[in-house]
Amino acid sequence: MHATEWRRFLIPYENAVEELKVKFKSIRTELRSIGEYSPIEFVTGRVKRVSSIIEKAKKLGVDMEDISTGIEDIAGIRIMCQFVEDIYTVVDYIRDRDGRDLEIVYEKDYINNYKDSGYRSYHIIIKYPIQTALGPKTILAEIQIRTLAMNFWATIEHSLKYKYKQNIPEHIEERIKKAADAAFKLDQEMSVIRHEIRLAQKMFEVRSKT
Amino acid sequence: MHATEWRRFLIPYENAVEELKVKFKSIRTELRSIGEYSPIEFVTGRVKRVSSIIEKAKKLGVDMEDISTGIEDIAGIRIMCQFVEDIYTVVDYIRDRDGRDLEIVYEKDYINNYKDSGYRSYHIIIKYPIQTALGPKTILAEIQIRTLAMNFWATIEHSLKYKYKQNIPEHIEERIKKAADAAFKLDQEMSVIRHEIRLAQKMFEVRSKT
Amino acid sequence: MHATEWRRFLIPYENAVEELKVKFKSIRTELRSIGEYSPIEFVTGRVKRVSSIIEKAKKLGVDMEDISTGIEDIAGIRIMCQFVEDIYTVVDYIRDRDGRDLEIVYEKDYINNYKDSGYRSYHIIIKYPIQTALGPKTILAEIQIRTLAMNFWATIEHSLKYKYKQNIPEHIEERIKKAADAAFKLDQEMSVIRHEIRLAQKMFEVRSKT
Amino acid sequence: MHATEWRRFLIPYENAVEELKVKFKSIRTELRSIGEYSPIEFVTGRVKRVSSIIEKAKKLGVDMEDISTGIEDIAGIRIMCQFVEDIYTVVDYIRDRDGRDLEIVYEKDYINNYKDSGYRSYHIIIKYPIQTALGPKTILAEIQIRTLAMNFWATIEHSLKYKYKQNIPEHIEERIKKAADAAFKLDQEMSVIRHEIRLAQKMFEVRSKT
Repeated sequence: MHATEWRRFLIPYENAVEELKVKFKSIRTELRSIGEYSPIEFVTGRVKRVSSIIEKAKKLGVDMEDISTGIEDIAGIRIMCQFVEDIYTVVDYIRDRDGRDLEIVYEKDYINNYKDSGYRSYHIIIKYPIQTALGPKTILAEIQIRTLAMNFWATIEHSLKYKYKQNIPEHIEERIKKAADAAFKLDQEMSVIRHEIRLAQKMFEVRSKT
Repeated sequence: MHATEWRRFLIPYENAVEELKVKFKSIRTELRSIGEYSPIEFVTGRVKRVSSIIEKAKKLGVDMEDISTGIEDIAGIRIMCQFVEDIYTVVDYIRDRDGRDLEIVYEKDYINNYKDSGYRSYHIIIKYPIQTALGPKTILAEIQIRTLAMNFWATIEHSLKYKYKQNIPEHIEERIKKAADAAFKLDQEMSVIRHEIRLAQKMFEVRSKT
Repeated sequence: MHATEWRRFLIPYENAVEELKVKFKSIRTELRSIGEYSPIEFVTGRVKRVSSIIEKAKKLGVDMEDISTGIEDIAGIRIMCQFVEDIYTVVDYIRDRDGRDLEIVYEKDYINNYKDSGYRSYHIIIKYPIQTALGPKTILAEIQIRTLAMNFWATIEHSLKYKYKQNIPEHIEERIKKAADAAFKLDQEMSVIRHEIRLAQKMFEVRSKT
Repeated sequence: MHATEWRRFLIPYENAVEELKVKFKSIRTELRSIGEYSPIEFVTGRVKRVSSIIEKAKKLGVDMEDISTGIEDIAGIRIMCQFVEDIYTVVDYIRDRDGRDLEIVYEKDYINNYKDSGYRSYHIIIKYPIQTALGPKTILAEIQIRTLAMNFWATIEHSLKYKYKQNIPEHIEERIKKAADAAFKLDQEMSVIRHEIRLAQKMFEVRSKT
């Protein structure tokens, strides 16, 4: 594809990322505006760069004419949560919308089944209908849901992978795993506190009624 | 309604305004990215303030429990175009989406049938489905499409109306009408040039091929 | 200059545009927040594209090593006002800052002395100190202040100039001048009303005290 | 102070936060645009809410007429870094600007001297000159510089403190400290890797030249 064709090809993905970012940010805004806890801390999104799409297509053996079905994360949305438990609340929000403004294709729980590298996140692949000036289109998009600690770790692992072109030396890989353990430990400590906050709040409520 | 109830009531309208702004801005971005002319110059949006909703409900005799159907512009989108002709291109874009991500309720052509005050704009009332954290909802929204000159005039007329609480003195009303004429003249001059640009471009294309 | 050198060269200009946009938008925000009239309607900014800088340097006979002093509008800020009178209020705001966060180099009043083409705007060339990660730098920037009608006209004239590569055919030039007259007429009508609003408000104030 | 007085009082703080956010974000943008590593990951800012200002003034025994000197964090900027070492690079950037667009009042290193609670961050209190529509003003602002892990922990500690109105139960305080340890461990692991990345990159550079 030429530069112009790529630009044309990527338009619905760019629109989808903008729309989905607005939609998930709205969840946070609306919950906070009515004084409720928001499981969403912040939202980012990006369209995969052309060079990365080509690279991934080669790696997966996907023909260029099949990339819109063969590569699922050309449009990517990332939702960050404070606590591990919040991730599943967000998953439920998305499931509630299944068949409405989006369609769930499949889910991957890399939290209960984390990768060897230490990677943890919840992935949902969706079909998303988009209206462009050139007509309607349905695209695939990947939603990644993670805690702040998971995101912190993943960002750094990603830049190391990029620097070492996938061949991370063993002793550094060892270090990354240790960092993943530390991030995991941090999330666990936080989850325990969260539980206690809820208990404490319930105790307080009961007490104030007697 | 209490402040909290109002906040809850307005959430889907706020989300709709954010989504619709992103959607119409995307049309401009995508057309420009592929080197095509965009009929959309810029897009703004707003949710009507609570005090204005209450005022309008009183004026129209709409009961508070019926405002979501009785007041059509709680969510408002404004699309600005360079030329009068562009307005109708935008109208066609919206009609193309009818039954997809929005539903047209009715249209009002205040350009061919401008108001006595001098007001000119194209209005489309739509139904727009929105997903909130509290469930799905369909709301009404008003899309106003106008040239920059129409918008310039309308903004100023609006602030005068507001200052005079609808009772604009006659000699000022006279002046506003003169300003509307000047704005209308400006749009007409621009339309003539636009036609000539297109002719000139066609001549150039033909010449460059012989 | 190579692409990387250009990017490095343009960094302080990009920072300056971002800072100046924030600064002038703040004037509007703060005046409105305390219930005062803002002479600033909206603010835009842009850094000149490399191709346009090169073109202008050739046209003006400026050597490439002198462009930072020879081309004054690499950083450009545009401030839009509702009324012609507001332009001079904004000019006063900028003069008040002279020697503080910016330094005025010179001013050009294309409103009282409009160009043959019909172009009207107030230009102020400033020196603006900027802190970059690579050290401090002082750059030149151009601030254009105009009414919405002036801006509307200028935008369209600019695109016609661009399309005809400066050689606008005479009969179209004639049309553009007519459009400029219409825009000028619109501004005049608005100015008259503005005066009357103020008078009306004073009358009202006096009456409400007796 | 009445609501209007508060709004007037907070204007320069709001402007300062906007300007400083733009300035620190620019550092990231410019370094990345020339292919250099940015020690700044992201930047946020906020003006303290009126209720929090009043509360803090009471706690510190500051009279209401002295809050502009007695409360140093009415304007707050937060800069997030990937690695602990980046924090000190950012501190150096700010020191370089001392006497230019800002003035350093004092610094507090809560990284080498972390608080009992486990709180770690680098604080710089600055004087910042601001031009408002109502004249020039110099305000105090607090810049907090931290790693993503420090920020993650601090955010959660802050919300717990808020929920327990400063009186966090001992067993939860114990838990928070454990979480701080986990966050600290994560930062340490990351720092070790950072060193190795640099070594690896140097080896690579040397190898590619022989």
